[in-house]
Amino acid sequence: MDETLLPAIGVEILIPACALVAIAFALVQWLLVSRVKLSPHGLDSAANDGGAGKNGHAEYLIEEEEGLTDHNVVLKCADIQSAIAEGATSFLFTEYNYVGIFMVAFAVLTFLFLGSVEGFSTSSQTCTYDPTKLCKPALATAIFSTISFLLGAFTSVASGFLGMKIATYANARTTLEARKGVGKAFITAFRSGAVMGFLLAANGLLVLYIAINLFKLYYGDDWEGLFESITGYGLGGSSMALFGRVGGGIYTKAADVGADLVGKVERNIPEDDPRNPAVIADNVGDNVGDIAGMGSDLFGSYAESSCAALVVASISSFGINHDFTAMLYPLIVSSVGILVCLITTLFATDFFEINDVKEIEPALKRQLIISTILMTVGVALVSWIALPLSFTIFNFGTQKVVKNWTSMLPLFCVCRQLSLCVAVGLWAGLIIGFVTEYYTSNAYSPVQDVADSCRTGAATNVIFGLALGYKSVIIPIFAIAVCIYVSFSFAAMYGIAMAALGMLSTIATGLAIDAYGPISDNAGGIAEMAGMNHRIRERTDALDAAGNTTAAIGKGFAIGSAALVSLALFGAFVSRAGISTVDVLSPKVIIGLLVGAMLPYWFSAMTMKSVGSAALKMVEEVRRQFNSIPGLLEGTAKPDYATCVKISTDASIKEMIPPGALVMLTPLIVGILFGVETLAGVLAGSLVSGVQIAISASNTGGAWDNAKKYIEAGASEHARNLGPKGSDPHKAAVIGDTIGDPLKDTSGPSLNILIKLMAVESLVFAPFFATHGGLLFKI
Amino acid sequence: MDETLLPAIGVEILIPACALVAIAFALVQWLLVSRVKLSPHGLDSAANDGGAGKNGHAEYLIEEEEGLTDHNVVLKCADIQSAIAEGATSFLFTEYNYVGIFMVAFAVLTFLFLGSVEGFSTSSQTCTYDPTKLCKPALATAIFSTISFLLGAFTSVASGFLGMKIATYANARTTLEARKGVGKAFITAFRSGAVMGFLLAANGLLVLYIAINLFKLYYGDDWEGLFESITGYGLGGSSMALFGRVGGGIYTKAADVGADLVGKVERNIPEDDPRNPAVIADNVGDNVGDIAGMGSDLFGSYAESSCAALVVASISSFGINHDFTAMLYPLIVSSVGILVCLITTLFATDFFEINDVKEIEPALKRQLIISTILMTVGVALVSWIALPLSFTIFNFGTQKVVKNWTSMLPLFCVCRQLSLCVAVGLWAGLIIGFVTEYYTSNAYSPVQDVADSCRTGAATNVIFGLALGYKSVIIPIFAIAVCIYVSFSFAAMYGIAMAALGMLSTIATGLAIDAYGPISDNAGGIAEMAGMNHRIRERTDALDAAGNTTAAIGKGFAIGSAALVSLALFGAFVSRAGISTVDVLSPKVIIGLLVGAMLPYWFSAMTMKSVGSAALKMVEEVRRQFNSIPGLLEGTAKPDYATCVKISTDASIKEMIPPGALVMLTPLIVGILFGVETLAGVLAGSLVSGVQIAISASNTGGAWDNAKKYIEAGASEHARNLGPKGSDPHKAAVIGDTIGDPLKDTSGPSLNILIKLMAVESLVFAPFFATHGGLLFKI
Repeated sequence: MDETLLPAIGVEILIPACALVAIAFALVQWLLVSRVKLSPHGLDSAANDGGAGKNGHAEYLIEEEEGLTDHNVVLKCADIQSAIAEGATSFLFTEYNYVGIFMVAFAVLTFLFLGSVEGFSTSSQTCTYDPTKLCKPALATAIFSTISFLLGAFTSVASGFLGMKIATYANARTTLEARKGVGKAFITAFRSGAVMGFLLAANGLLVLYIAINLFKLYYGDDWEGLFESITGYGLGGSSMALFGRVGGGIYTKAADVGADLVGKVERNIPEDDPRNPAVIADNVGDNVGDIAGMGSDLFGSYAESSCAALVVASISSFGINHDFTAMLYPLIVSSVGILVCLITTLFATDFFEINDVKEIEPALKRQLIISTILMTVGVALVSWIALPLSFTIFNFGTQKVVKNWTSMLPLFCVCRQLSLCVAVGLWAGLIIGFVTEYYTSNAYSPVQDVADSCRTGAATNVIFGLALGYKSVIIPIFAIAVCIYVSFSFAAMYGIAMAALGMLSTIATGLAIDAYGPISDNAGGIAEMAGMNHRIRERTDALDAAGNTTAAIGKGFAIGSAALVSLALFGAFVSRAGISTVDVLSPKVIIGLLVGAMLPYWFSAMTMKSVGSAALKMVEEVRRQFNSIPGLLEGTAKPDYATCVKISTDASIKEMIPPGALVMLTPLIVGILFGVETLAGVLAGSLVSGVQIAISASNTGGAWDNAKKYIEAGASEHARNLGPKGSDPHKAAVIGDTIGDPLKDTSGPSLNILIKLMAVESLVFAPFFATHGGLLFKI
Repeated sequence: MDETLLPAIGVEILIPACALVAIAFALVQWLLVSRVKLSPHGLDSAANDGGAGKNGHAEYLIEEEEGLTDHNVVLKCADIQSAIAEGATSFLFTEYNYVGIFMVAFAVLTFLFLGSVEGFSTSSQTCTYDPTKLCKPALATAIFSTISFLLGAFTSVASGFLGMKIATYANARTTLEARKGVGKAFITAFRSGAVMGFLLAANGLLVLYIAINLFKLYYGDDWEGLFESITGYGLGGSSMALFGRVGGGIYTKAADVGADLVGKVERNIPEDDPRNPAVIADNVGDNVGDIAGMGSDLFGSYAESSCAALVVASISSFGINHDFTAMLYPLIVSSVGILVCLITTLFATDFFEINDVKEIEPALKRQLIISTILMTVGVALVSWIALPLSFTIFNFGTQKVVKNWTSMLPLFCVCRQLSLCVAVGLWAGLIIGFVTEYYTSNAYSPVQDVADSCRTGAATNVIFGLALGYKSVIIPIFAIAVCIYVSFSFAAMYGIAMAALGMLSTIATGLAIDAYGPISDNAGGIAEMAGMNHRIRERTDALDAAGNTTAAIGKGFAIGSAALVSLALFGAFVSRAGISTVDVLSPKVIIGLLVGAMLPYWFSAMTMKSVGSAALKMVEEVRRQFNSIPGLLEGTAKPDYATCVKISTDASIKEMIPPGALVMLTPLIVGILFGVETLAGVLAGSLVSGVQIAISASNTGGAWDNAKKYIEAGASEHARNLGPKGSDPHKAAVIGDTIGDPLKDTSGPSLNILIKLMAVESLVFAPFFATHGGLLFKI
């Protein structure tokens, strides 16, 4: 009874089919978005629309609402959009240039380090886990790891870039649709988010699938070597994500903080006012930081958890027995996840319609709930057909037997224990999402308390906000702990990797709601800059407020899954490095643990200081322009947007290097000088410490942002007492919001990459450290 | 060659002699302070001067300086002092009442839990570590642990209370001496700090020494049981310290934040202005929080590291061979430390004289350097005479042989390896101290950068301040890591305990400089309230600014030693609980690690929110008084100080319970439900995570405070550009300072107690957990 119901050929069809369906679906959504014309004369100004919008005819809106017939507004929106798109594209190219050099250098390093394990010998070696067999030489691992590293890096770049293209294509369209009503605008923004979500999920899956199949041509039956090489894919994905998140994060927050400090606080002009010289940089920032950076980040998580699961599976009975279906179970789960998300998306775009501002947040939340419920069924189904009834899982040198439960509980939903691991991850993700919502949405008391503390000024606002962030860590940590315990009990480190994949299985939906936020934010900016009616701005603001919460939820998912992924990678690293225990009582481990727990602080110090310094420069430039350009404040003269864009670009390129180097070099230095045990300590320490700071930073930031929006919206008696805009409590709230910016959009979300990246890097270089590492203790 | 040069009788003389010398020295210092008369008619208003000042004659000042002949000022100072002393005494009594109930309840719990290990049997049992021998029953351990717990709690209370008495005796005297010059004021404040330092160090040592000797009457040769029971002393000391730090911290910061927010920010009146209704509460707070709380805290650290060293020694060759001199080596080190500090103090009070404001900080720093150098010699000497040439140290089930180096290196300073462990701790402490100074003193660029960031407002100030705090963690963590590695390599967990004791061996000097700060702060407050000349206030402000830095240094020591102490306690716990490895790869441990790393956040959230809420109430009351008492702002009516004192008192008593319960109950709940492995994970997690937050919180707060003082003092071109008082950058700096208050004086310093207390509690209850724990996993 060790065969799977689904034959190998079925897998070969299912995975690419799902990926292609997702791509097709994304293209259809894109087509629908492109129907919103950006030019009264059909001259679509967006660069990448592939002809879909160039039908030459003005088939635009017939509804009788304000501004609908104003051709100038449409042209203005198109202009602003193309300025934003241009700025974003040019920044990303600059960034990729620099990062490209680094990637090539690191690829060479990877090849040299891994090749040196057996002195670049080309003869086959006995396998690490099964000494009775012969495996491909370390040189092959070096070559293929390097290839998959570059592949991962390239896919990550593509994911981020595509997302940015779509977002800058959709933002002005969302603004224009907002003239017709909040529902239309919502659908446009959400569809565009979905384009990004599905393209990214499908690409990640497809490239990985193709790489496995191509590598197999060389590796043949040596699955141990094959999947060891494949981990390079995760490393490549995450290293790009690191630079994307850090660079993009510094860019966007330098511009945002700089724009707010002078515009809102000093000059008393509204957010996104076209008179503010930093306004274009700010809007560009949303696209390069929150869209491209986040896209790379989540792709990295996905790639890493797949690799972690695959590498553990390859040395378990799946790999030993060459059971291809079971071996690719992680990819099958992701494939089904894509289908589930596809159905879920229809609930937002076709099955329901949004008619009121209040329906936005529930609609987005419904997406999370529906996808989680559907996915639970999907996982059960897929585990039933893709897994054998009994198998063994590698567990630090021993094999742990996982048995079927069918005989005990004849319900198909628990027919495989592994489906429980995936499900527990999935639901833990939902819990983290809801807790995050509770702590960051202004519909609940925590944010309202923070807003209330603004009565006594900025200081109490900051104290309450920091306390809120610290408190919001409690339940997510318990959820992750339960998830770890349950999934480990069922299937050791493989269970944890599958729990991480479970949390990420609905990534397409998660990304759609995540990307929806910055698109709406940009749409609001464009409305303001184009001088559109305040009713339009109110609608986009409502979309954006919901987006703030979903952004926080998305970060919660990203962090939760990062914790699980890096634990799984950590487990794989320990196995690969040949360590039997990581004993906290050993001084080598405890000093690693202590230093590892310090790294997130060091990293945060760097990124926050970078944002601060860049923002200072931005403030000076904006002040300079207001002081030296006559008529700027009156709106009769145009500001010099380009200089501000340049400040953000230069600052982020320059400042992303030290934190990037810290993360990329730490595992190498520790591994080489102190050896694998200390490195294991460092990984565990940075994991348990980083996850806390990451959660608290992003929730604190989200709460401050929404406390400010709560006062501004004035939707309750309490809120009106604190407002209106410009009141002392509101000013205090703006200060909190500004402090939260680097926390929630730069250091916080970068920390989960720090955790994952150090783990996957250690895993890739484990053979090297095991043979050549620990120089200092050897002396 | 296994005998020590110092015979047991020598130890019996040396330890009590040193303690008595210290007490005598403290009394002499007190006598010198009491020479400053607080009343022109010799009616000394301070309560506790024991007659020394009551000679009935006015032998006061003859110098021709301002206000020296103004009897009214002296009377006013005496009045204010007695109001502060009364407030502090009444708060401490209220606090001790509540905590007393808790202590009794916890003592009963301790007795029941430990007694139940062998079902309250009165028959002797085979020893845990040496099964060939018979040890006293678990019931005896229960009884004696309870006694030593109560003894520790009582000594801790006495330490805090005595410190407060001295501080409130010295503050007005410092103010009066400031009329004669900064040097005289410095000596008065410093002498008073020394009184506290020496009394506390001597008491801690003497009580422990007497307890050991009394317990020995019952235990006889069963040293394993004897020193196991003694650990209760550490538990008692630290639990009192927890409530002292948290309660005192909330009290002082609620008053401080409340007073600042209305007084400085809204009403634009100076700090410590007598018109501010919260001013007395603020000054009381310094004495109950920074003095009494800190005293209890450092006493707790001292008691715990001594207990950790003793309990490990008792199962090593010292204990097995009943080598009394070597066994009491930790106490001998502390005794010598007292003598070293005594000499060091003379450098500040007698050998040098301070004539200028600029000499204050160097003088305090010199204290640290001199004591460290002298102590290094002292340790070498004492290790030479008190340790055998070769001995074995218990190392998780095995015995590690520690050999003499005399034959290899004939220098007496390295004649015993153990002296290296103590020295490495001592010097690591000095490094931490200097790094803290660099990051918190406004003489260096980090604080100046933070001050500079105030140019763009409070938001950038907060961002830079947080980044500074995060960055300041790096070097201390490396120092601690090196310290752990070196001392563990030489003598396993005993080495770590001795390193902690090394860091604390100069505790008397440390406490003297620490206590000096709040005394100067109070002196400034009294000068302001008594309406004295601004020149007096400038002098006390200079004393206080140096005090801010030394307070941060003191916190650095407290945290660094706490990290080492809790690691040593952790090691002792693991041995006692019979765990052979704490493997991070076990799911039981990793979830413990994750949850443990979360606890400092939970705890900080509680304490910060408590300060925030209490401050809100204080703000409302102060505003109410300004609005409802006619003539208050004009100075014609007196504010109602008592209501503000009551608000602080009620808030701190009520709010100290939840965080206290969190810390005290977590080890019990985790141990009982999840067992010793998960508990070990929790301890390690909270250690590695807590130490980072504690360091960054106290340095961030210290930096903000001094950035504000930097702008106010305007001592450089740069500082004058940012000022003066009331300018926008100064206002931004005040906001930062207010945010930093709860960070540096409530949550930060409480965290090191959290770390230590959970560890010592686990150690005390280890036999109980080992027999009855882990219920949840047993099901």
